[in-house]
Amino acid sequence: MKLQVTQENLSKALGNVARIANTRSTLPILSNVLLKTVNNRLSIAATNLDIAITQYIGSKVSTEGTITVPARLMQDFVSSLPSGVIDLTLDDIKLHVSTEQYQSVINGVPADDYPVMPAIENGVEWTIPSNVLKKGLQQVVFAASNDETRPVLTGIYFHSEGGKLFMAATDSYRLAEKELMKTKEEISLLVPANAMQDLLRIIGDTEDDVHIIHDDQQVLFRVDDVELVARLIEGNYPPYKKLIPATFATSAKLKRSELNSITKVSSLFARESAGSITIKVDEEKQTVSIHSIASQLGENTAGASAEVTGSGDITLNSRYVLDALGAIHGDSVTFGFNGKLEACSFRDNDEPDYVHIIMPLKS
Amino acid sequence: MKLQVTQENLSKALGNVARIANTRSTLPILSNVLLKTVNNRLSIAATNLDIAITQYIGSKVSTEGTITVPARLMQDFVSSLPSGVIDLTLDDIKLHVSTEQYQSVINGVPADDYPVMPAIENGVEWTIPSNVLKKGLQQVVFAASNDETRPVLTGIYFHSEGGKLFMAATDSYRLAEKELMKTKEEISLLVPANAMQDLLRIIGDTEDDVHIIHDDQQVLFRVDDVELVARLIEGNYPPYKKLIPATFATSAKLKRSELNSITKVSSLFARESAGSITIKVDEEKQTVSIHSIASQLGENTAGASAEVTGSGDITLNSRYVLDALGAIHGDSVTFGFNGKLEACSFRDNDEPDYVHIIMPLKS
Repeated sequence: MKLQVTQENLSKALGNVARIANTRSTLPILSNVLLKTVNNRLSIAATNLDIAITQYIGSKVSTEGTITVPARLMQDFVSSLPSGVIDLTLDDIKLHVSTEQYQSVINGVPADDYPVMPAIENGVEWTIPSNVLKKGLQQVVFAASNDETRPVLTGIYFHSEGGKLFMAATDSYRLAEKELMKTKEEISLLVPANAMQDLLRIIGDTEDDVHIIHDDQQVLFRVDDVELVARLIEGNYPPYKKLIPATFATSAKLKRSELNSITKVSSLFARESAGSITIKVDEEKQTVSIHSIASQLGENTAGASAEVTGSGDITLNSRYVLDALGAIHGDSVTFGFNGKLEACSFRDNDEPDYVHIIMPLKS
Repeated sequence: MKLQVTQENLSKALGNVARIANTRSTLPILSNVLLKTVNNRLSIAATNLDIAITQYIGSKVSTEGTITVPARLMQDFVSSLPSGVIDLTLDDIKLHVSTEQYQSVINGVPADDYPVMPAIENGVEWTIPSNVLKKGLQQVVFAASNDETRPVLTGIYFHSEGGKLFMAATDSYRLAEKELMKTKEEISLLVPANAMQDLLRIIGDTEDDVHIIHDDQQVLFRVDDVELVARLIEGNYPPYKKLIPATFATSAKLKRSELNSITKVSSLFARESAGSITIKVDEEKQTVSIHSIASQLGENTAGASAEVTGSGDITLNSRYVLDALGAIHGDSVTFGFNGKLEACSFRDNDEPDYVHIIMPLKS
């Protein structure tokens, strides 16, 4: 293997790929990245067995070849090099990485031992504008669970219904749903949320479409010259749509920044009580007020004016409220609930395609 | 106690002061800040028994009084409030903190129990321009030791010699010395480095002079309306001046950014060897090259052209070299040494008042 690449391209590719190489895996080769010449390109790939990311960069290839090298060292090293041409030359399993000023030798491991994700054959293929997917993911991905004992809830659920594509995530305490776009496909994909975190980084600021190909086992996302393949999560996603309330006994419309401020301040007094804050909606006064108590330290009441229909109060985890408000972009937000035991819904008044549900705490 | 302050002033003061309140102290009241009306000002103070910081802010005082309140909650709360007027009203030991939108009650602890640092009486007083002190501290403070078993080395040593004021710090592996200014005082002060870290934050971007008052036990730094008092460290500072080499068998002058780059890249290959890099100076080639080896992962050689006198090599800890180069601001740096067993000196070619010494590693 002998080739030339630019530092800029190789550094960017390693930035996208090397993150999922895991130095603590029981399979040591998974801490490496796989380099491989493919026609006049160099592919840089890594996998953690659940997710694989591959990026192709332009390259002047003199001799074909392949090798794996330690991901972290390679990434740190290449990102520290000055911009310009880098020579990569493989000598047995030693990869020589050279520029005018730097000559280094990185000890590799033969590529034969590197695990490869199976190819997707006869998959369904569709595309989605990258900005639509990116914005949607940012609005739902944080609501997925980290708890591996219920694998289904660690996924993002892409599914079509009535000619529309939806994306949902829930950890059973809260739920986020986004309507993405119209579609003619029949889609039902449960994709690991951590793969979608990686995809968000890869999408970055690209303006191209994202191509998606999937079969029953895997899904591939292609963005420009980067491919992310993820193993789908098995199991049935809970029928979440029935959790979204359609009507409300109590609802309040107010400035998102105001609700965010009073929630944030209230949360400071809710640290002892696992974030518990009580939101009171007063129809007569047309106000929303939040009360929180830190038994040792003190208590706080914060208020804001709102357009209110129906009085009531509900106790929520302040962190979930702040997360929900962070996922809403408009100036104005409406929240509504039906008594203190049922789910509370948050909506952007300018964006009817997003809904966020939070289950109440016992108060 | 009943008064009004602005959110901006109170938040800024808590930002300066609350940091040293320690929630893990065995004396619980040390996690509080002391609030006290002083004529038409409010003083905000905290101490960890070694350091005390007090800031005075303008205030409309209706009733005098004093109380201590939880530092972290108070700081987080006030910094989250909108700008404008805050009412502080003490009701027994409950501090009511109110704005138009927020009403909170913070449970205090009576101020009688709060430890006060003794006053400095008949102290020596002098001043130093804040930018001189700030720049000097930034150049030396990181070289002090964290190891409490040798308290003397955890200090910054301010001392006068031949009509000049110097500041020095060493952890016995490296040494930084800065000549600050001319002085007529006889000064010999050993100030805790962590107090100087706090002072750096307090100095911020002020342009006023820093006033310094000290006796045998304590030193007070006054910057605008903030006072920092620190207990001096007892003991004799090592006679470090004789460690600074006056002449060199080998020396190299080169661009600081170049030396920084090749050191940084070399350090990536030095992680297994505790940062050990070997710097080779070649008079014939007029180059500096750095070699580092990661036995498992590979090795690296990086070079740069330099104005060289005398060939030689020396093995240093790359982190210390990067720290030294980070403390030097000029475009060009000269380093010199006398064989591989003696100290290596780094100097800024534009700033003769700063010298940084690093002891070699065994190679």
